[in-house]
Amino acid sequence: MKHKIAVFEKIIDEAIREVLKDCQPQTLFIPAKYMLSLGGKRLRPLLTLMAADLFGKNADKALDAALAVEIFHNFSLVHDDLMDNADLRRGYPTVHKKWSDSSAILSGDALVIEAYKYIAKAPVNVLPDILELFSTTAMAICKGQQYDMDFEQRLDVTEEEYIEMIRLKTAALIGCALKIGAVIAGAPAGDADSLYEFGVNIGLAFQLKDDLLDVYGDPETFGKKIGGDILCNKKTFLLIRSLKNTNSTQRKELDKWLTITEYDPDAKIKFVKNIYDELNLKFVVEKLIEKYYLASLDCLSSINVPDNRKRDLIALSENLMYRET
Amino acid sequence: MKHKIAVFEKIIDEAIREVLKDCQPQTLFIPAKYMLSLGGKRLRPLLTLMAADLFGKNADKALDAALAVEIFHNFSLVHDDLMDNADLRRGYPTVHKKWSDSSAILSGDALVIEAYKYIAKAPVNVLPDILELFSTTAMAICKGQQYDMDFEQRLDVTEEEYIEMIRLKTAALIGCALKIGAVIAGAPAGDADSLYEFGVNIGLAFQLKDDLLDVYGDPETFGKKIGGDILCNKKTFLLIRSLKNTNSTQRKELDKWLTITEYDPDAKIKFVKNIYDELNLKFVVEKLIEKYYLASLDCLSSINVPDNRKRDLIALSENLMYRET
Repeated sequence: MKHKIAVFEKIIDEAIREVLKDCQPQTLFIPAKYMLSLGGKRLRPLLTLMAADLFGKNADKALDAALAVEIFHNFSLVHDDLMDNADLRRGYPTVHKKWSDSSAILSGDALVIEAYKYIAKAPVNVLPDILELFSTTAMAICKGQQYDMDFEQRLDVTEEEYIEMIRLKTAALIGCALKIGAVIAGAPAGDADSLYEFGVNIGLAFQLKDDLLDVYGDPETFGKKIGGDILCNKKTFLLIRSLKNTNSTQRKELDKWLTITEYDPDAKIKFVKNIYDELNLKFVVEKLIEKYYLASLDCLSSINVPDNRKRDLIALSENLMYRET
Repeated sequence: MKHKIAVFEKIIDEAIREVLKDCQPQTLFIPAKYMLSLGGKRLRPLLTLMAADLFGKNADKALDAALAVEIFHNFSLVHDDLMDNADLRRGYPTVHKKWSDSSAILSGDALVIEAYKYIAKAPVNVLPDILELFSTTAMAICKGQQYDMDFEQRLDVTEEEYIEMIRLKTAALIGCALKIGAVIAGAPAGDADSLYEFGVNIGLAFQLKDDLLDVYGDPETFGKKIGGDILCNKKTFLLIRSLKNTNSTQRKELDKWLTITEYDPDAKIKFVKNIYDELNLKFVVEKLIEKYYLASLDCLSSINVPDNRKRDLIALSENLMYRET
């Protein structure tokens, strides 16, 4: 099983290196290639190949679509990093820091167009359906990013709004990556939809785990600074629940930390984490992650494919739930 | 004839108003709708409908594709305005000035995805060809914008490089708009290609006319300030030819005006325009426009359609050549 995933990962890595190779002008395409080369988990294209494989199709048939998903994901990261003014991505300088804002805008634009070039290679009999899913998902990601930015200005974001935001911004593309693989493999519509829902639930759990790791991750293994979300007042589930459930003394103190601009970062992280601990939020969010994980397994079990074919997907999602990085 | 164009324009205006109507979140879609509502000539979608009509197809059949072209054009304007730090577009504040940089980035992204949603509605038998043309053109526009920005840092841009840049940035989409209409109308491949080349030549003439109007336009009718390109050292054909053909005294003076940052704008415009006049460049560029215009007519005459059906396109392109705004 592990062998198959390793083979898929190798196929993806080799194919990604060929994307936009030797294109001119270099001022446009070197930043785009740089972003694609930074790696990351390559989770989304892997899921596309695994979905095609799940329905008994040679994964190669879904490779172009898998690349489209990964290229689109990288486009959204380039533009998000610029909008969020992030300095680092996967430990390396972001495109706008390494080159310029204009470079990030235009190389991002080139990436989204390149993503559509790859998705357009899908077999013509499923092309309209795949384009519809791809564009709807792409638009969902834009909406999610807009909500995320809008939430920065608000203190009254609800938990439902937060879940909807991460569904749009993160989970939809996980579902889309899987469903595209299924559709290309000729899966029945019901099964393809169930695999989409499996992916959305995994995606929600994945993002909530991300939020937890930002606070409770091991600084040795996490790979980035602990407490980043706290320092930028990101409206994660943890903070939203805290704003709702703190007593008035805590809330007053919390509001102070959320508004002051000059502070000791470690003191702010310590204070906010202490509130999370008092409200037992690590446990609360772990339970929520489990809820989405179990829901994802329900979706998977409804798919009309022998159980032994599903093992890879289950193993992969378990790894995502219990990861420490 | 004029009646038919007016009908097409009305169809386009009504359809554009329905694009992204009532979409949420408003923080994302109001800026996108704003840009679409600013109008402009609607030249590109008009050309798509006229191309379908040229080959005897009901123009309605090409309306979604026409909208895709117009939406894509507006996406590129939103991002270009941000990269060029332009304050005004069609006399109104640009998206990034009216809202924010992030708003311009993300609403631009939403527009490009919406453009693909519309192009994906093309009849499935021509969908792969149309997607290929659309994405290749979209990428050409990004490349053209990158060259345009790269040229800002250079004094040695050649006339050939300039023509290639405007071919990518402006002319390719004119050709694409026409060819898409032809392909949807079931035109023979050779005729569709000739119509594309007609459009590219018209597009080159159109951009050169734009460069001329920036210097020699009538301030009363032109609608924007005369000399904008001169003030920002834009490497137009006029400036490139001047840098090549001025004598050493003039060149020294010209280099001074191109490098100083504190100056009287009217004095700079007067000086540069005087060089253009001494080199007789208005006449030179008018001859070049005529060359591309005649080439466009050659392309059109090779198309296997009765001449009386071509009259609208000829009238429209004549208007573009001899326009004063």
